[in-house]
Amino acid sequence: MSKPFAGVIPPVVTPFKNDELDLEGFKANFIQWNKVPLGGYLVAGTAGESPHLSAGEKERLFAAAREVISNDRVFLAGIGAQSTRDSIKLAKIAGAQGADYALALTPFYFRGQMTGEAWEAHYRLLADNSPIPVVIYNGTPSSGLNISPDTVARLSEHANVAGVKCGAGDMAQLRKFVRLTPEDFVVLTGAAAIYYPALCMGVDGCGAAVGNLAPATMIAMERSFKEGNHARARELQDLITPLGGMVTKRWGVGGLKLAMDLAGRCGGDVRMPLSRPGDENAKNILLAALANLADLESAYL
Amino acid sequence: MSKPFAGVIPPVVTPFKNDELDLEGFKANFIQWNKVPLGGYLVAGTAGESPHLSAGEKERLFAAAREVISNDRVFLAGIGAQSTRDSIKLAKIAGAQGADYALALTPFYFRGQMTGEAWEAHYRLLADNSPIPVVIYNGTPSSGLNISPDTVARLSEHANVAGVKCGAGDMAQLRKFVRLTPEDFVVLTGAAAIYYPALCMGVDGCGAAVGNLAPATMIAMERSFKEGNHARARELQDLITPLGGMVTKRWGVGGLKLAMDLAGRCGGDVRMPLSRPGDENAKNILLAALANLADLESAYL
Amino acid sequence: MSKPFAGVIPPVVTPFKNDELDLEGFKANFIQWNKVPLGGYLVAGTAGESPHLSAGEKERLFAAAREVISNDRVFLAGIGAQSTRDSIKLAKIAGAQGADYALALTPFYFRGQMTGEAWEAHYRLLADNSPIPVVIYNGTPSSGLNISPDTVARLSEHANVAGVKCGAGDMAQLRKFVRLTPEDFVVLTGAAAIYYPALCMGVDGCGAAVGNLAPATMIAMERSFKEGNHARARELQDLITPLGGMVTKRWGVGGLKLAMDLAGRCGGDVRMPLSRPGDENAKNILLAALANLADLESAYL
Amino acid sequence: MSKPFAGVIPPVVTPFKNDELDLEGFKANFIQWNKVPLGGYLVAGTAGESPHLSAGEKERLFAAAREVISNDRVFLAGIGAQSTRDSIKLAKIAGAQGADYALALTPFYFRGQMTGEAWEAHYRLLADNSPIPVVIYNGTPSSGLNISPDTVARLSEHANVAGVKCGAGDMAQLRKFVRLTPEDFVVLTGAAAIYYPALCMGVDGCGAAVGNLAPATMIAMERSFKEGNHARARELQDLITPLGGMVTKRWGVGGLKLAMDLAGRCGGDVRMPLSRPGDENAKNILLAALANLADLESAYL
Repeated sequence: MSKPFAGVIPPVVTPFKNDELDLEGFKANFIQWNKVPLGGYLVAGTAGESPHLSAGEKERLFAAAREVISNDRVFLAGIGAQSTRDSIKLAKIAGAQGADYALALTPFYFRGQMTGEAWEAHYRLLADNSPIPVVIYNGTPSSGLNISPDTVARLSEHANVAGVKCGAGDMAQLRKFVRLTPEDFVVLTGAAAIYYPALCMGVDGCGAAVGNLAPATMIAMERSFKEGNHARARELQDLITPLGGMVTKRWGVGGLKLAMDLAGRCGGDVRMPLSRPGDENAKNILLAALANLADLESAYL
Repeated sequence: MSKPFAGVIPPVVTPFKNDELDLEGFKANFIQWNKVPLGGYLVAGTAGESPHLSAGEKERLFAAAREVISNDRVFLAGIGAQSTRDSIKLAKIAGAQGADYALALTPFYFRGQMTGEAWEAHYRLLADNSPIPVVIYNGTPSSGLNISPDTVARLSEHANVAGVKCGAGDMAQLRKFVRLTPEDFVVLTGAAAIYYPALCMGVDGCGAAVGNLAPATMIAMERSFKEGNHARARELQDLITPLGGMVTKRWGVGGLKLAMDLAGRCGGDVRMPLSRPGDENAKNILLAALANLADLESAYL
Repeated sequence: MSKPFAGVIPPVVTPFKNDELDLEGFKANFIQWNKVPLGGYLVAGTAGESPHLSAGEKERLFAAAREVISNDRVFLAGIGAQSTRDSIKLAKIAGAQGADYALALTPFYFRGQMTGEAWEAHYRLLADNSPIPVVIYNGTPSSGLNISPDTVARLSEHANVAGVKCGAGDMAQLRKFVRLTPEDFVVLTGAAAIYYPALCMGVDGCGAAVGNLAPATMIAMERSFKEGNHARARELQDLITPLGGMVTKRWGVGGLKLAMDLAGRCGGDVRMPLSRPGDENAKNILLAALANLADLESAYL
Repeated sequence: MSKPFAGVIPPVVTPFKNDELDLEGFKANFIQWNKVPLGGYLVAGTAGESPHLSAGEKERLFAAAREVISNDRVFLAGIGAQSTRDSIKLAKIAGAQGADYALALTPFYFRGQMTGEAWEAHYRLLADNSPIPVVIYNGTPSSGLNISPDTVARLSEHANVAGVKCGAGDMAQLRKFVRLTPEDFVVLTGAAAIYYPALCMGVDGCGAAVGNLAPATMIAMERSFKEGNHARARELQDLITPLGGMVTKRWGVGGLKLAMDLAGRCGGDVRMPLSRPGDENAKNILLAALANLADLESAYL
C-alpha cells in the first residue's frame, strides 16, 4: 500500500494524578500497546482531553510520547485550536518534539462563519507553516459541524496535507473522502462501531477511543477483513461495538479512564467538568464488556 | 434597583494589528463609549475573539481595560475555558487585573457529558475559587448547548455566583431565569434583536455585539422602556435589529470590525479563520445601516 | 384597529368517545368559552388532533362549530395538508361549512424540497382557489421547519392571504412578520408562554392550546397590556406559562384533554398513538395549575 | 435464507397525468422492472408520494399493482398514517387488494409525544388488527425522528411484525436492528448510497428511490456482494450513489420523475408543492448519470 500510514491508531488517554500530568502512567501504557501491531498513536486528541491541556503540557506529552513510540509506528499529534495562529504554534511544537503528523480539528467556535472557504484558507495557511504534514480532523461529535468532501478534496492537493480523520458516521461521506482524494491520501474513521463497514468502503484506518482498551481485537478484526474473512470481521466488530459505545456516548472519557484502570492499565483522573462514573453498576457493566474481549486481548501478551 | 450591575454592557472588540494585540486601538474605543451611559463592558467575550486570545493576551487586555473603565461602570472579564482548572486560572488573572466579574461560558467540548450536574459542579468549584463573583454565560450560538433554568436557579444560591448572561433567544427561558433566581441576581440577554421584549420580561441588561456600534441607540431604547414609552422603545428596537444581525449571524466578528472602522472607531483585523467581508456590497450595506443610527449615536458626542 | 381579526383564538380540542367524534361534547365546550370575550376559535388545529381526523370528520366538525360560533367571533378552520390539492379541497369544505378563514400549515413531509419558492407557489395556488382567505401556519413544533419573513412578506401581497400564525418562539422573526406585512395583515403567535412579549412586539393575537383552559386569564393579560399595565400583564403571563407547558411540551394533547375533564369541560379521549397521562401525579400537577387560575377563570361565569 | 423477503425493493413512483392517477403509466413501468430479478416493490411509499394520495387512490394503486406484480415477488404497501386508526384502515385496504406486507412509517406529527412506548403501543395495535404482516418504517429523512433498536427488538417478537425498513444512515443502528431481532425478521435499508456496507452489516435488502432507475445495477451489486466479490460490489456502489443523491436530497421526487421520463419510463407529473427541476442543467446532469449506468441497465432487456 502506498499510504504513508494506516491501521488502528488509538487516541491515547492522558492520565492525571492530583490534577497534574502523570507522565509515568502515560508512558507505562505503551508497554503493552507496543506489543500489538497498531498503526500508531494519536497524542492529545479528544480522548486525551486535549481541550484540558495547556500548550506546555502538550509539549511535555509529545516529548514523552516520542520516547515510547518506535519509528515504525506513526505518531499523530493533536494540535487543533480555534485560531489558525494557535494551530500553527502547536504544529511547530509537535514537530519540534518529533511528532510525525499534526492532526487539526476544524475550528468551530464561530460556527456561523465556518464555511468551506474559511476552513480551506485555515488549513492552507496551517499546512504552509507546519513543519510536519497536516491531517484534517472532522470531529463532528465535538464540533457539531461537518466538512464537505469537496473541501477535503481541494485541500488534499496541498503537498503538506496528508489525510483526513472523520468522526461523523456517514458512510457515503467517508466513501467520498476516499474517492475524491489522491492515492496516497489517508482516510481514517474515528468511530469504532463502524470500522468494519468503513474498511469495506476503503478507509485506511481507525482512530477510536476504544483502541486504548481493545487494540488486539481491533487488529484481529482488521486482519480478518484483509484476509477476506468478512464473517469473522463482522463478528469481531460486534465484540468491539458495545465497549466502544460505553467509553464515548455513554460515559465518555471518564468511562474510558475507569475502564483503563479496571483493565490493569493507567487511566487516572479526568479533569473537571468531566468525571468518572462513580456507581458500582457502571463498573460492573464495563468489567463485563472487558471480559468479553479478554481472550482476544491476551493474544499479544 | 438592588442589582449589582445592569444596562447595556457591550462585549468589546479586540483590535489586532499585524496579527498582534493593538492595545492603543483597544483603549481608544473607550473614549467615545465612556461618553455614553453604558452599564459597563465585557472584555474578552465572543465578540472580543476570546478563543483566539492566549492567557497572556487576556491578562494584558484586562490590564488595559482597567485603565479606561471608570469605577462606576461594571467590568466583566470573559474567562470561560473548557476545563474548570483553566477557568479558575483565568478568573484569578481577571481578578488580579481589577475586573469586577468573571463571565464564564459553559464548557461544551465534551458535549455528551455536559449534563446539568456536570455544569453545576463546574460552576461551584469555579465560584469557590474565583476572587471575583462569577456570571454564568449560556452561549448557545457558540456552544450549541443550553443550560436549564433549574440549574441556574440552584447555582444562584451560591454567594459568589452573581448572574447569568443568555445567548439563547427563548423568551420563556429568560423569564424563568428571572423568576427562579434571587432579587439581586443579574439576568442579561446576549441578543440585541430581543432586548426590548427581554426588558419587558424583566431582564436587567444586554451584552450584544452591536453595542460596540450603537451604544447610544441601545441606551435610548432602554430609557424609553424605563419611562414607559413602549412605542418608542419598539421603534428604537427596530433600528437596532438590522445592524445587530449583520455583525452576528450574517458576517460575524469580521463584519463587526469592518463596521467599527467604517464608523470611525477601531475595529482592526480579525484572526483567522475569521475574515472581514471583502466585497464592496457588504461595506455599503453596513454603511447604510450605520447611517440610520447616526443621529441617535451623535447624542453624546 | 384595522385588523380583520385578533385576540385570543384557542385551537379547540376535538373530543372523542369510543374513538368517534363526540360532537355534543365539542359543542358543549363553547357554552362557557362564548361567555369570555375571545377573538375566535380555531377548529381542527394541532390541539384539535387534525392529523387524526378524516376529511369527512373535519366537515362535520366545521358544521358543528358554525352552530356555536357567533358571527362576531372569527372562525378559523385548520385545513393544512401535504399536497396543495388536498389543501384546496379542505379549504373548499371549510368555506362551504361557513368558516371565515382557512389556516394552512406549511407542507413539510418532503422537507428537503420545501424551499421558500415551493411554499410560495403552494400558498399562491391555495389562495387563488380558496373560497375564504388563507392564514399561513408556521407550525415549527410539528413541522420542524420554519418559514422566512421574506416569504411571508411576498405572500402577504396576495389579496386572499390574510395573516400568519407562528408556532416558532423567535421574537425577532415575529417582529419581522409584523414589520414586513401590510397594516391589515394579521400576525398571531401560537406559543402561550410568549404572548405578553409578543404583544409588545406588535402581534395581534394568540392561538395556543392553553386557551382551551385559561381563556379568561389570557383575556385579562391582553387587557392589562392594552391598558398599558405591563406589570400586571407580566404577572398574568407568569400564571399562564406553567399550565401552557404542561399541555404542550410535557404531556401534549393527552394532557390538555385530561386537564379539560379535570376543569369540568369536555376533553374526552385522544386517538392513538397519543395517550392521556395515566398516573395520579400528572393529575395532581394539572389540578394544582388549574387551581392557580380558578379565580381569574370564574370572572365570566 | 429463512427470510420471508429480501433484495432490491424499489419504492415505485406514482405517475400523474393532469393531476390525476395515471394507472396505465404506473403499470407500464413494471414491464421492464419485471425482467430484472428484483425482490419486490413498495407501492405508495415516500417516492410514490404517499402523502399526496387519498385512501381511495391508494386502493386503486394497490389493485393495479396486484395485476402486474407476480406472486414470486413481494408486494409491500405503504400504509403509514399519523393515527393508529387510519393506519389500520389502510392496512385493511392493502390486504384486501392483495398486498403482502403493510409498511408503516412511524407517526411523527406530535413529535414531543412520540416516545418508544407510544410507538410500541401503536405498532402492537396495528399488528393485532392488520390482515397482513407489518413492516416498521423508520423514515428519518421525512419524520425527523428515529426509532431505537430496543423498541424494534420488542416489536419483532410480535407474530405479525415482519421487519423494519430504516431510512437513517447510521450503520451501527442498522447492525443493532439485525442483531437484536429474530432470524426471520427482515431488515432493509432505505438509503441507496450505503447499500453495499449495509449488506456487509447483514441487512437483507434495500428499498431506495434510485431502484426505479437502476434496478439492474443494484442487482448486479448485490450479486457481486453475495459472490464475495467485494471490490466489484464497491465499484458498482460507486456507480449507484451519484444518481441516488440526485433523486433524493438534491431534487427529490421531482428529479426522480424527470429522470424516469428521460430514461424512457413513465415518471409523469408530481403533485404540488413538489415540482420537477425545470432547468436544462438538471436534465443534462441526470442524463449523464443515467448514461453511466446504461450498459448495466440493459443487461436484462
